[in-house]
Amino acid sequence: MSTAGARMAEEVAEQPAVFDSIVARRGDLAGVAELVAARRPRFALLAARGSSDHAALYAKYLIEVLLQLPAGLVSPSTTTLYGARPDFTDVLYLSVSQSGGSPDLVAATAAAREQGALTIAVTNTPASPLSAAAELSVDIKAGEELAVAATKTYSATLLSLYLLVDAIRGGKGEAVADIGELATTALSAPIEEAVERYGHVERVVTTGRGYSSATAFEAALKLAETSYLAARSYSGADLLHGPVAAIDAGTGVVAVTSEGRGGAAMRDVVATVRERGADVLAVGSASADMPAGLRIDVPATAEEVAPILEILPLQRLALALSLARGGDPDQPRGLSKVTRTL
Amino acid sequence: MSTAGARMAEEVAEQPAVFDSIVARRGDLAGVAELVAARRPRFALLAARGSSDHAALYAKYLIEVLLQLPAGLVSPSTTTLYGARPDFTDVLYLSVSQSGGSPDLVAATAAAREQGALTIAVTNTPASPLSAAAELSVDIKAGEELAVAATKTYSATLLSLYLLVDAIRGGKGEAVADIGELATTALSAPIEEAVERYGHVERVVTTGRGYSSATAFEAALKLAETSYLAARSYSGADLLHGPVAAIDAGTGVVAVTSEGRGGAAMRDVVATVRERGADVLAVGSASADMPAGLRIDVPATAEEVAPILEILPLQRLALALSLARGGDPDQPRGLSKVTRTL
Repeated sequence: MSTAGARMAEEVAEQPAVFDSIVARRGDLAGVAELVAARRPRFALLAARGSSDHAALYAKYLIEVLLQLPAGLVSPSTTTLYGARPDFTDVLYLSVSQSGGSPDLVAATAAAREQGALTIAVTNTPASPLSAAAELSVDIKAGEELAVAATKTYSATLLSLYLLVDAIRGGKGEAVADIGELATTALSAPIEEAVERYGHVERVVTTGRGYSSATAFEAALKLAETSYLAARSYSGADLLHGPVAAIDAGTGVVAVTSEGRGGAAMRDVVATVRERGADVLAVGSASADMPAGLRIDVPATAEEVAPILEILPLQRLALALSLARGGDPDQPRGLSKVTRTL
Repeated sequence: MSTAGARMAEEVAEQPAVFDSIVARRGDLAGVAELVAARRPRFALLAARGSSDHAALYAKYLIEVLLQLPAGLVSPSTTTLYGARPDFTDVLYLSVSQSGGSPDLVAATAAAREQGALTIAVTNTPASPLSAAAELSVDIKAGEELAVAATKTYSATLLSLYLLVDAIRGGKGEAVADIGELATTALSAPIEEAVERYGHVERVVTTGRGYSSATAFEAALKLAETSYLAARSYSGADLLHGPVAAIDAGTGVVAVTSEGRGGAAMRDVVATVRERGADVLAVGSASADMPAGLRIDVPATAEEVAPILEILPLQRLALALSLARGGDPDQPRGLSKVTRTL
């Protein structure tokens, strides 16, 4: 019988070492990157579920901004439920799943490949059905993940996707050369005050813009899964469009605010929710500039790699809140590790 | 000084007449549909925010399944924040916004057009900046919407998008010929018991699969905007993947369950959340087959047009819950009608 949350805590703490090892083996991606560059896809589509869907959202930004390819998120069910068989010639189809075992992703990937897409499986399980279904595969090398809530596989997926996209454009991974060391710093940020302040809220809204919208979505999912909080996420733009109506003094707002254009665009969002009386926690390298009640600083990086670090203190927050609320994130109620969606 | 919620109630009630008028003027879409068919796009991208984003999700299913084109949802901010300028040749780019006034959508649409996309603005405001920015435009003809929460513009957008996609494939709109009459029936379904049961819950999860996932997302937004409920939505597939952990006897679950493949795939989802003690409300034409505690029936239609009807009782539920909880959905706290995202 282990201590509550011990597995999740251990895997959260492993992330700097996982990052170091991924960066050190960056060269393993060269073959896949060269094939993609040679095939010159014109469009990118990304398929994923759960936490991996947030990694896919991050990759969509990378692909549009760094590769200048139109990119969109797809729903596997158009294939698996409705039998759609579009022409996927010239399409780069990325399927993201830590387990590589989701039957609907496997089926959708196989169908995309049959229809002409260049398919790449991004998984933590190189021997998985998803890797077998795709033409190419990328191993995120996070090591086995035992905790039910995905932590190191999420961040390792982001880092692997960044390195893949960077390699496709001919980069050498400079922006993440010291990401392991920065991750150690990010994981040492004090979170006690946030745990105390959020220990009793029932409603949390997470928000971010641009690359960091992925962090906001993943943080809400992590809080909902481990702490049973009613956590919702919105891009900062969508939040002001409507749901801000539901934000008041009883709402904890987690605003992801890193240096760069996405973070700068969050200033108005933070000011607006603060005016409504919300208890705002700013997380990121630009948190000090935000009109927030509470801040968790994260080391500064290039904006496009900030999500790899931003999520780290938020994973710790989810874990600590779960424990503070009497839960055990290693024994969540009814969560199983592999989706069996058909 | 009008009665609380009078505007929203009036616009909800207008929907059958709005549908009749849209169907009667189906021919207005012929020109746009012919141009799209002639241009033979290879990919579709959809840009939207808020409620319109849910209409775009619905259209993504229509385009993949009925037109057999790969389709994805884009983030306007890759263009507006990060200056991405991908090659949009062969892309059908649909921008959906009732007001047509969101500056970031206008900028993203103009950029897509410059980069070679066939751009179509789908709005309720034909003289809007968005219609001017796009090459083609579709007027959803919902009439002016005064209530802050979008209702008739949402459903009119779905119907217009269905008719457009159907016209592109050479259809004659048979599946929606009597949608106005069916809408009258859908709006007369008793919701009192649901209002009573949900009047005191603080946490609602909405879920659906396939076409109906759009209904689940829109219902959660509507509940959050008008009733300040902590409402989250998940596709049925994603829900079982993780967030089901947060569902217990204190959670109200709204399961959208219409006849067809998406609804059939919801049976396991409903059974699972019910086992966890959740109070399940099934809404749709297959609700009678679901192991739910409470049901709201909706007239049966072809599965691909069911979302146009499913949302109607859910709009009434959001309105009634807002009033029951002492609110006024016409005066929500801090909601403005047009997003000003830059």
